[in-house]
Amino acid sequence: MTAVDVVVMAAGKGTRMKSRLPKVLHRLGGRALLAHVVECAAGLKPRRVIVITGHGAPEVEAAVGRLAQAGGLQDCSCVRQEPQLGTGHAVQQALPHLPEDGICLVLNGDVPLIEAATLQALVDACGGERLALLSVEMADPTGYGRIVREGDAVRAIVEHKDAGEAQRAIREVYTGFMAVPNRLLRRWLPRLTDDNAQREYYLTDIVKLAAQDGAAVVAQRTHDQVQVDGVNSPLQLADLERAYQRRQARRLLESGVRLADPARFDLRGQLSCGQDVEIDVNCVFEGEVALGDGVRIGANCVIANARIEAGAVIHPFTHIEGEKAGVRVGEGALVGPFARLRPGAQLGAEVHIGNFVEVKNSSLARGAKANHLAYLGDATVGERVNYGAGSITANYDGANKHHTVIEEDVHVGSNCVLVAPVTLGRGGTVGGGSTITKDTPAGALSVARGKQVTIAGWQRPVKGKKA
Amino acid sequence: MTAVDVVVMAAGKGTRMKSRLPKVLHRLGGRALLAHVVECAAGLKPRRVIVITGHGAPEVEAAVGRLAQAGGLQDCSCVRQEPQLGTGHAVQQALPHLPEDGICLVLNGDVPLIEAATLQALVDACGGERLALLSVEMADPTGYGRIVREGDAVRAIVEHKDAGEAQRAIREVYTGFMAVPNRLLRRWLPRLTDDNAQREYYLTDIVKLAAQDGAAVVAQRTHDQVQVDGVNSPLQLADLERAYQRRQARRLLESGVRLADPARFDLRGQLSCGQDVEIDVNCVFEGEVALGDGVRIGANCVIANARIEAGAVIHPFTHIEGEKAGVRVGEGALVGPFARLRPGAQLGAEVHIGNFVEVKNSSLARGAKANHLAYLGDATVGERVNYGAGSITANYDGANKHHTVIEEDVHVGSNCVLVAPVTLGRGGTVGGGSTITKDTPAGALSVARGKQVTIAGWQRPVKGKKA
Amino acid sequence: MTAVDVVVMAAGKGTRMKSRLPKVLHRLGGRALLAHVVECAAGLKPRRVIVITGHGAPEVEAAVGRLAQAGGLQDCSCVRQEPQLGTGHAVQQALPHLPEDGICLVLNGDVPLIEAATLQALVDACGGERLALLSVEMADPTGYGRIVREGDAVRAIVEHKDAGEAQRAIREVYTGFMAVPNRLLRRWLPRLTDDNAQREYYLTDIVKLAAQDGAAVVAQRTHDQVQVDGVNSPLQLADLERAYQRRQARRLLESGVRLADPARFDLRGQLSCGQDVEIDVNCVFEGEVALGDGVRIGANCVIANARIEAGAVIHPFTHIEGEKAGVRVGEGALVGPFARLRPGAQLGAEVHIGNFVEVKNSSLARGAKANHLAYLGDATVGERVNYGAGSITANYDGANKHHTVIEEDVHVGSNCVLVAPVTLGRGGTVGGGSTITKDTPAGALSVARGKQVTIAGWQRPVKGKKA
Repeated sequence: MTAVDVVVMAAGKGTRMKSRLPKVLHRLGGRALLAHVVECAAGLKPRRVIVITGHGAPEVEAAVGRLAQAGGLQDCSCVRQEPQLGTGHAVQQALPHLPEDGICLVLNGDVPLIEAATLQALVDACGGERLALLSVEMADPTGYGRIVREGDAVRAIVEHKDAGEAQRAIREVYTGFMAVPNRLLRRWLPRLTDDNAQREYYLTDIVKLAAQDGAAVVAQRTHDQVQVDGVNSPLQLADLERAYQRRQARRLLESGVRLADPARFDLRGQLSCGQDVEIDVNCVFEGEVALGDGVRIGANCVIANARIEAGAVIHPFTHIEGEKAGVRVGEGALVGPFARLRPGAQLGAEVHIGNFVEVKNSSLARGAKANHLAYLGDATVGERVNYGAGSITANYDGANKHHTVIEEDVHVGSNCVLVAPVTLGRGGTVGGGSTITKDTPAGALSVARGKQVTIAGWQRPVKGKKA
Repeated sequence: MTAVDVVVMAAGKGTRMKSRLPKVLHRLGGRALLAHVVECAAGLKPRRVIVITGHGAPEVEAAVGRLAQAGGLQDCSCVRQEPQLGTGHAVQQALPHLPEDGICLVLNGDVPLIEAATLQALVDACGGERLALLSVEMADPTGYGRIVREGDAVRAIVEHKDAGEAQRAIREVYTGFMAVPNRLLRRWLPRLTDDNAQREYYLTDIVKLAAQDGAAVVAQRTHDQVQVDGVNSPLQLADLERAYQRRQARRLLESGVRLADPARFDLRGQLSCGQDVEIDVNCVFEGEVALGDGVRIGANCVIANARIEAGAVIHPFTHIEGEKAGVRVGEGALVGPFARLRPGAQLGAEVHIGNFVEVKNSSLARGAKANHLAYLGDATVGERVNYGAGSITANYDGANKHHTVIEEDVHVGSNCVLVAPVTLGRGGTVGGGSTITKDTPAGALSVARGKQVTIAGWQRPVKGKKA
Repeated sequence: MTAVDVVVMAAGKGTRMKSRLPKVLHRLGGRALLAHVVECAAGLKPRRVIVITGHGAPEVEAAVGRLAQAGGLQDCSCVRQEPQLGTGHAVQQALPHLPEDGICLVLNGDVPLIEAATLQALVDACGGERLALLSVEMADPTGYGRIVREGDAVRAIVEHKDAGEAQRAIREVYTGFMAVPNRLLRRWLPRLTDDNAQREYYLTDIVKLAAQDGAAVVAQRTHDQVQVDGVNSPLQLADLERAYQRRQARRLLESGVRLADPARFDLRGQLSCGQDVEIDVNCVFEGEVALGDGVRIGANCVIANARIEAGAVIHPFTHIEGEKAGVRVGEGALVGPFARLRPGAQLGAEVHIGNFVEVKNSSLARGAKANHLAYLGDATVGERVNYGAGSITANYDGANKHHTVIEEDVHVGSNCVLVAPVTLGRGGTVGGGSTITKDTPAGALSVARGKQVTIAGWQRPVKGKKA
């Protein structure tokens, strides 16, 4: 098989994005546009990937470095195009880095939803011998370069403004993707001129050169517009984001996941689901999320980097964010509504986390419960512990974080403060309203509160001027 | 009027649902597909309802039992089809249970949005004499059985694969619904054969038998595709769910309810509304909900089984779930944002429940307020009580639930714990931070807290290695 | 330039709205329909604005007064139409208030999305000489009055029911907007008759009178249906609300704002955005909101009347409502998830407000933090203060609100109550679980809590009958 070298155009400014961020680093589905393209390219097992950078080059090059590492790309490098003198000029920069043999596949860093199968078909159409263009049939091709065919062969790409009436009627247009043998590219690129209104070197001019040389030019047609749509403005980005999300929703539905509303579902990462998973309206998933068999996710949840085991139920308005340290929710656990699980939250089976409860960097063993208005941070909570409403682990002394251990079967009353480091011994009880600063013995009742007194003669404040 | 017997096809496996749940038990609008069909059938006052079960029969039959009871269906039973040898075979199982006279109306347990008026028209078209098929005009009928007419009469149903070019141009297709006189069904069903590629007995073959017998066959046409759409995959279920929700939203809008966005509205049950009700974006209603005149529901609320009286305002992010015991919100009450009302919450007029407040199995009399970060469980709260921020009813001692009584005009300070069972006497005040374990006298100030002291020489912790 | 007098039709009942509220006071994008119309009219710098009122006149007139004041309209008045005898009769009521010269521009109080440029073109088409009608091309004009042209001139408006087949094929219809010289209006209006089935005086009949008088009638065509769509039912209101929101979303996208889903975005007021602002799905903005450069708004936020400075991040499920007193969030601040900022919340740079935290009428200086389950009301919080989880400012004594001062570098422990009025001296520490009723000295540790004791012989409650 002929080796494939990928050239990714990523030097453009993207003026219409009106952003400080280089265009190819704008995110779609939670990842940079460029990341989609590079990951797709990686699917072809390319010999080499060369990213042409220009505007915002340092940021883009740093991103490419991370992508290459994450994607296991052996030979991935950046070449700067400075100044930017057109698409032909861009590929000229890559030329010194392209071997003599092989196929050069030209991708665009701002066309994120291209698929590997489409690219493979384009490479196959090239076959190491022909100039192969990727084309698409558009309902309204106004403004795009038309593919002028003679039978199967392509005779020219004619820009909209240069097209006559008959040519304007053509609905097949060039997409910006091409595959071309390196040896032909090497022959044609130096012959490009900037003899046009923009004073730019156009890559598409190699079609003319191919005609001059009698080389074969073919067009590989796709019918999936979304794959070749580029991002030039926030509006296009938003439209493509929706197309992407609809595609992901469809894939999940086809795998058996029940989505209450595919149009109100956002996945910015990877979601793996067991059987009979139900996801209610308006949920957002980020990073790596795994949902076990029968998991139900209520309306309006935001969930990032979490593993939710079989049968767990996540009630509405739950926010799970397992940034670096993932969050785990055990089998049959109940979480929410209005719960927040932060990095390092590890809930065992049948754990209950209720409303207005925050859990951070804490593990709760099987059957432990924190049902109301509570904070568990840096804590190890044993089986069957009942952690009372309004209770707080005071894990931060203003300088350092400390750990709290609540052994199994402890019952912590309401509105308690557990001043860490502290250990509550197994089976003990902490009276409501207690501030616990010392370890408590197993099995005993510990309290730390004032005696209840009545002040009978006391007069209630009356409405008046503010003090 | 001729008696109508309903046969519901509910034996199919629904492989493409990729679910452990039998297909007809998948939910749309919060109810099983089969429930929609049986409830629609009930609207025709049928003499008898026979549900054909097969895959997942025990679960389906249990569901039918519950539906028959809830719907007041006198004569509703299940017949198992084992093995499943086609639609004709399915109705054959029902035959022994069908009286000699009357009309048999064949429904599909996975076609949930059929309406009674459409079925009545079909029954009328049958008239106890004709084989009446329900047909629909489709934009793209590919794959469906075409209705071949001769004038008004139906000559045949021709399967897509058997259809010639002219027949493929027909856009009227069979829906799977039919009404047929029992006496004709009795004559035709035994004559069905499985002489086809699938080795199945097709119910549609009785059209041929009718032709042989010179019996009249008519097609009753509907133009409402949604009524005859079946559910075979999660994608189709999601599409039909949206169609159902749009229909419900439209009905509410027509009755005068103001929905901020009909495409972001979900109703899974019954919603009755007074005049000038406003519902903001992205709300979900479940079970039985009643909203009085002028009620406003903020964005992103989830509300189940509740009665909200006139003029009450539910702020965004409010979660109301009146599972078994309904929730009541009195006239002019203000609830939320970020409030949760659980089963048994009974709020009187002008009650205020604010952010991060949970109310469970508690009544609050007129004008009582719990505005911030509080829990009221198993409590009776009098008129004008002010329940302080962060205060908690400690209603659970680890074994039993106990009751708290807060008499009228009591002022409970912030971060108090009321250890139930306990009664706070009328007009009393509880000082902030108190843990109240004994009843408090009326009109007095009760406190239970430590004396404030200053430890002057104390050194703050400094940043270091964790303890 | 000829002076323009605007007549706004606002007398109709709007029966199909099924509301107690007069139709023109129903809200779209957070403002009354009539407000949209009057504000649009103001863009033309009219000499005079006359609103014709009828149904619900007192309410409508009060609203007009507020609008005129807010919009700086010098000469804006209301004229009552009682009884309502048709559109011609309505304008007759305005006639005594129209000067001899100038152009009368007739607008409809229930057609909210008309734009000033469209009206200006209509006024220009009138030119002080012609009767100028605003027309629109409709895909399905059924039910609407057709514009019958003779060359460029308009010959008649023909009602649908009176139209022949050829006329029914006309897709250009009258919109209800017209511009007419006052002197011609003065000539025609008295000649209108109610000689029709409805016994009403139709304004459109002046087209016939113009023909009789040989006066020129022209039609100014718009292609933007949304601008001329009226609101007659909640369904139409909801549809137009969505059209309005899509238009606003598009405008923001074009200005560089990144919206995750333009179809799940609601703006009811004014939103100004710096560069590189990102707004996630399902957010609602109300009143006046300003977002600085690089601000990120998470999913499901509701934000009203707030200024959020550059680089601040608002996490999902945050509710900000700066009703009268605006809310300010400083540079680089982090807010939410599940945070609520109420009127008068003023957060300095780098402030952190975390989950289940409510801030009302309080200022927090640079770097202050309240990360968990807390309430800050009527407080002044210094730089770098750490306000512990579960802590509460007890700002209300049941009669009056009092102020709390927390000086810089104070560390407030968990579950504290600060009973206002109270001042915590700079650099002091308050031990967890303390109820602070007196000022605390700078630099010292203050505590107010009971001593921790263990009650060893205590028996846990056992499951039994409820007490």
